[in-house]
Amino acid sequence: MTARSSTDANRVIPEATVARLPVYLRALTALADQGIRTCSSEDLASAAGVNSAKLRKDLSYLGSYGTRGVGYDVDYLRYQIAREIGVTQDWPVVIVGIGNLGHALANFSGFRSRGFRVVALLDADPALVGQTVAGVQVRPFDELEETVRTNDVAIGVIATPAVAAQDVADRMVATGITSILNFAPAVLAVPEGVDVRKVDLSIELQILAYHEQRKAGGADPATVVGADGGAA
Amino acid sequence: MTARSSTDANRVIPEATVARLPVYLRALTALADQGIRTCSSEDLASAAGVNSAKLRKDLSYLGSYGTRGVGYDVDYLRYQIAREIGVTQDWPVVIVGIGNLGHALANFSGFRSRGFRVVALLDADPALVGQTVAGVQVRPFDELEETVRTNDVAIGVIATPAVAAQDVADRMVATGITSILNFAPAVLAVPEGVDVRKVDLSIELQILAYHEQRKAGGADPATVVGADGGAA
Repeated sequence: MTARSSTDANRVIPEATVARLPVYLRALTALADQGIRTCSSEDLASAAGVNSAKLRKDLSYLGSYGTRGVGYDVDYLRYQIAREIGVTQDWPVVIVGIGNLGHALANFSGFRSRGFRVVALLDADPALVGQTVAGVQVRPFDELEETVRTNDVAIGVIATPAVAAQDVADRMVATGITSILNFAPAVLAVPEGVDVRKVDLSIELQILAYHEQRKAGGADPATVVGADGGAA
Repeated sequence: MTARSSTDANRVIPEATVARLPVYLRALTALADQGIRTCSSEDLASAAGVNSAKLRKDLSYLGSYGTRGVGYDVDYLRYQIAREIGVTQDWPVVIVGIGNLGHALANFSGFRSRGFRVVALLDADPALVGQTVAGVQVRPFDELEETVRTNDVAIGVIATPAVAAQDVADRMVATGITSILNFAPAVLAVPEGVDVRKVDLSIELQILAYHEQRKAGGADPATVVGADGGAA
């Protein structure tokens, strides 16, 4: 399953590289906005917050090696990465759970500018149904199946309390959704073939607390090693 | 810098393990809430969404090996992990930027239950100053220095628009804050010794889009390999 192949569909891209591609894309967009046409791997690495050796390795998976003495063509590399990620497509998204976080997500302009179109906001609370958030009217959660079918929804976002998250995920999977972004503080059980990405706000804070504690205790932060085995 | 040592302060814990400790802690809390006193590594791994070999390896960094035939003592392992992360301490947090996302963060109960106390909400917009969110009154951003000093703030959270994020980070660093959680879609430049964790909502969606595209194109999702080199 992990053998390399020369065909695009079977090419192996490490998960950690996939996670950095959107970061490179954002950095390239910022360079392009400043009118910069070409950039060195060092410039791009610095803008993306990684080291340049890792950047070059990552881009080599896309077959992008730059030109010696010139660097990377900013526009072409943007196109290559966007195509690889799939953000040149249109991705209809449904958000379930329109509390504070659901409101923030619905209003988040970064979704729209990257091909993610929030086509529906659903909530089980009748008090929220009918409200308009970011130009979209909140609908009852029971309309999930119809919404997914009508709008060809590809990605479901869960912004409900933890206790409701598994039920919402089950209903999403039953409608054929195979990609879920989960903001609820719960581990979701889903069948094979369904991808779940989890954003847990408190977990990021706990990771910071770990480092802060080490600093306060006088420990050398460099004794924590990165996922790639290098010093963090 | 990465040599192992027998002293606590210099013990090497891989960054990827640090990132999973809060996930184990949450899974253990859920087990304890169900009245479960001991658990096997398989049970805990399943609740945390990792494989059990990885779990055992992670816990071995904490010196936790469980008891053969019995498994792990749920309460004791919770204590060990909480102490390792530092969430047995009190962490005063300041949130800068009280738009939709700042509101959601201020209301997020998961912070308080894990030792993170939101002591101040700051915003540069005079229209927001004076409002009360989650029981805390929004104060002018210019009170940052005084707020950090008075409350001994350890962690700063940035929930501003991208354009303001670097200025906020610079001001935070100048006041002595060395841990920043950044929600703004911007790469922050900070001096060595300052930890920045970035939560980018659109990046998680883009990673899902990558996988969704591969599924739609008939590619085998198993050709994506995890950060540890195993099949995802």
